[in-house]
Amino acid sequence: MSTPADDGRMNFHTRKWVRPEDLNANGTLFGGSLLKWIDEEAAIYAIIQLGNYRVVTKFISEINFEASAQQGDLVEMGLIATHFGRTSMTMRAVVRNMITRKTILTIEKIVFVNMDEDGVPAPHGHSTITYERDRMPREHSGTGTIRLP
Amino acid sequence: MSTPADDGRMNFHTRKWVRPEDLNANGTLFGGSLLKWIDEEAAIYAIIQLGNYRVVTKFISEINFEASAQQGDLVEMGLIATHFGRTSMTMRAVVRNMITRKTILTIEKIVFVNMDEDGVPAPHGHSTITYERDRMPREHSGTGTIRLP
Amino acid sequence: MSTPADDGRMNFHTRKWVRPEDLNANGTLFGGSLLKWIDEEAAIYAIIQLGNYRVVTKFISEINFEASAQQGDLVEMGLIATHFGRTSMTMRAVVRNMITRKTILTIEKIVFVNMDEDGVPAPHGHSTITYERDRMPREHSGTGTIRLP
Amino acid sequence: MSTPADDGRMNFHTRKWVRPEDLNANGTLFGGSLLKWIDEEAAIYAIIQLGNYRVVTKFISEINFEASAQQGDLVEMGLIATHFGRTSMTMRAVVRNMITRKTILTIEKIVFVNMDEDGVPAPHGHSTITYERDRMPREHSGTGTIRLP
Amino acid sequence: MSTPADDGRMNFHTRKWVRPEDLNANGTLFGGSLLKWIDEEAAIYAIIQLGNYRVVTKFISEINFEASAQQGDLVEMGLIATHFGRTSMTMRAVVRNMITRKTILTIEKIVFVNMDEDGVPAPHGHSTITYERDRMPREHSGTGTIRLP
Amino acid sequence: MSTPADDGRMNFHTRKWVRPEDLNANGTLFGGSLLKWIDEEAAIYAIIQLGNYRVVTKFISEINFEASAQQGDLVEMGLIATHFGRTSMTMRAVVRNMITRKTILTIEKIVFVNMDEDGVPAPHGHSTITYERDRMPREHSGTGTIRLP
Repeated sequence: MSTPADDGRMNFHTRKWVRPEDLNANGTLFGGSLLKWIDEEAAIYAIIQLGNYRVVTKFISEINFEASAQQGDLVEMGLIATHFGRTSMTMRAVVRNMITRKTILTIEKIVFVNMDEDGVPAPHGHSTITYERDRMPREHSGTGTIRLP
Repeated sequence: MSTPADDGRMNFHTRKWVRPEDLNANGTLFGGSLLKWIDEEAAIYAIIQLGNYRVVTKFISEINFEASAQQGDLVEMGLIATHFGRTSMTMRAVVRNMITRKTILTIEKIVFVNMDEDGVPAPHGHSTITYERDRMPREHSGTGTIRLP
Repeated sequence: MSTPADDGRMNFHTRKWVRPEDLNANGTLFGGSLLKWIDEEAAIYAIIQLGNYRVVTKFISEINFEASAQQGDLVEMGLIATHFGRTSMTMRAVVRNMITRKTILTIEKIVFVNMDEDGVPAPHGHSTITYERDRMPREHSGTGTIRLP
Repeated sequence: MSTPADDGRMNFHTRKWVRPEDLNANGTLFGGSLLKWIDEEAAIYAIIQLGNYRVVTKFISEINFEASAQQGDLVEMGLIATHFGRTSMTMRAVVRNMITRKTILTIEKIVFVNMDEDGVPAPHGHSTITYERDRMPREHSGTGTIRLP
Repeated sequence: MSTPADDGRMNFHTRKWVRPEDLNANGTLFGGSLLKWIDEEAAIYAIIQLGNYRVVTKFISEINFEASAQQGDLVEMGLIATHFGRTSMTMRAVVRNMITRKTILTIEKIVFVNMDEDGVPAPHGHSTITYERDRMPREHSGTGTIRLP
Repeated sequence: MSTPADDGRMNFHTRKWVRPEDLNANGTLFGGSLLKWIDEEAAIYAIIQLGNYRVVTKFISEINFEASAQQGDLVEMGLIATHFGRTSMTMRAVVRNMITRKTILTIEKIVFVNMDEDGVPAPHGHSTITYERDRMPREHSGTGTIRLP
């Protein structure tokens, strides 16, 4: 495991405006919605880092729900790659309130695995973290490795 | 932490028939949907065990995605209480394929906290596990503690 | 038609915690959501009883909405097989409040038909009710009959 | 019960284009989605006929699923009032394929009850069927009886 | 561009009862839901007018949000064809409150393009507006041109 | 109207991985989903720029659908403020494929209005564009103006 990347380099991309459909029956943000959002964002990040659409969630480390959110709050999700294995990659995730900057939850390790066409883990050939978007998939098709002109 | 309850006593209640809307872009079960399902099931279990509708997810331990599922698969979720703290309770969760009995994911500890009317953690007064449904909320209203006749 | 099974043997599996997205515009549980839930649960039950994923809803008898539910209520769905025809099976359904045990709705007969690969009704070869889960589909694939090792 | 209105007078309003999210795991239109659609359409029809937003589904008679639908099909829902009780109204419903005109399902009686502000059944004062939209709610607010200028 | 059709001939079909899941975080109708509804309704209208399921949204003219709607409001969508190009058709759209008849939004031009099997714009052969439903797709399959017996 | 900001300064935040539930019946990205996504992203951007949660979509200029997207594609949404009126603000929006950078749609002007507590347009007091996030709402509550410590 490499040293966790410093948060200064973490990028916050996808944002959500908490709407009634995201609430649990007590009127606060439903934990399940939060987990669904972070898993989708992590999948997108893994696809870009590995240059392959065929990625699967393999492992999520401890999740500490530090604060909640309510209807109308703005929430943003940040991710940063922290380690590259032979067929996998690891990232760190933070979900926070955009306005107060208060952390909602932190996940130290989300591991995605790079799969080949037959759904078997395959080496991805990367060893360094790409903070610029220079290792993107290159194929037009929504599935599989991508090669740009 | 008490000894984890044996799986023989784990109850499997909610079931899902994996439909197109539950799939990720690769056509397998979206991890985020899975996490949303288990969080909702755990909240229901905590409400019944603690006799209080005001419960919040506080902590989820490591999640290992052991197998995937595809469109048409039947999936069931099992939970069992493993520990009662002063204001919290811990449960163990398993999601598996109903047909093959193959485990999809296991979570050793999901911790819910018992809240009072002001949203502050409050003692729940329970110390033993209720495998029968004898400690249910008793009030008709969907929010707060419940007292049955 | 065989004698309706006694409710003591009815199993309640899937549970729902009524959330804002399940409400109609008057703030009570939307009848349409309720019907969607019971149809999905019945399909799962039919698949297990008939050992075949290719089942379709054919008939639903009178539905009497006896009580409503509100945000935060816990609702559970119970089903029991009551009759096996040559290509069909019939079940009885109850939806009730988990806490008060008050019945929300009862449906005397939901009929599912067993289909072959071409979408034509086909004999299923069963004549007795399987209360244990001993007649499950056996194939891994999400579609079609299933054979376990 | 009055004589069922002839279908020539049945109005078909809401239409759906069957999308992937409406399918069951076998790839045909999910019965639960169909029931959800018809219940919402019937509630709208009852609100207009009774001039009151506070209406609840009370009873649905036998539902015969005559044909299915698949992704891409256009489906339309038709309703017609058939009877007015003191606090209730009854309607007949048909769901059909817009292109082939083939009936997907028919429901002879859907009964809605007119409620007062306290959620108690209340007389609605109507005894004839309004095929023109001349008995609409009149208040701007989304809840309760409505009075137009 | 032909003369815009008069509104007297505009047909209002699909209706919505604004539910909690349609609201934005401020508790009024979410603009995004509104746009999603009108796009689906326009696609259905284009399929019927062009007799082809393969249609795509190409252009939407200025949208002026004149009024909002709230939970419980009844909303209806009206469309009318205003012009036929060689491979396209144009329609005018109005969304209004069913009860007050107040306009929520108006769109002067929504343009759909008629595609062939390879996803390339193709002549549709129509030059007049079909106010009766006499130019419907005729094939049973949900995709492609349709021929009725 | 001020000069449109150059695209080099446009920020792309929210991303989507096109899943089966986002597709229309032809299997390409549903235009309605696209419009829903951009409206939500624009609302979040307006809240941050105006420092007020009470904002409403007032106007959307012509939308040209330049390209489509399919299941598995990664889509990102970019926005930039282009003008501040007394009670409104205008932004420019681009939706593009993250991998190929191909534009899916462009909207020259999306206008949001700043509302006071009574839902009446109110001056927002801003005249310059905030590219850094220095004019955020400051109150914790999800509704209304916000004051940070």
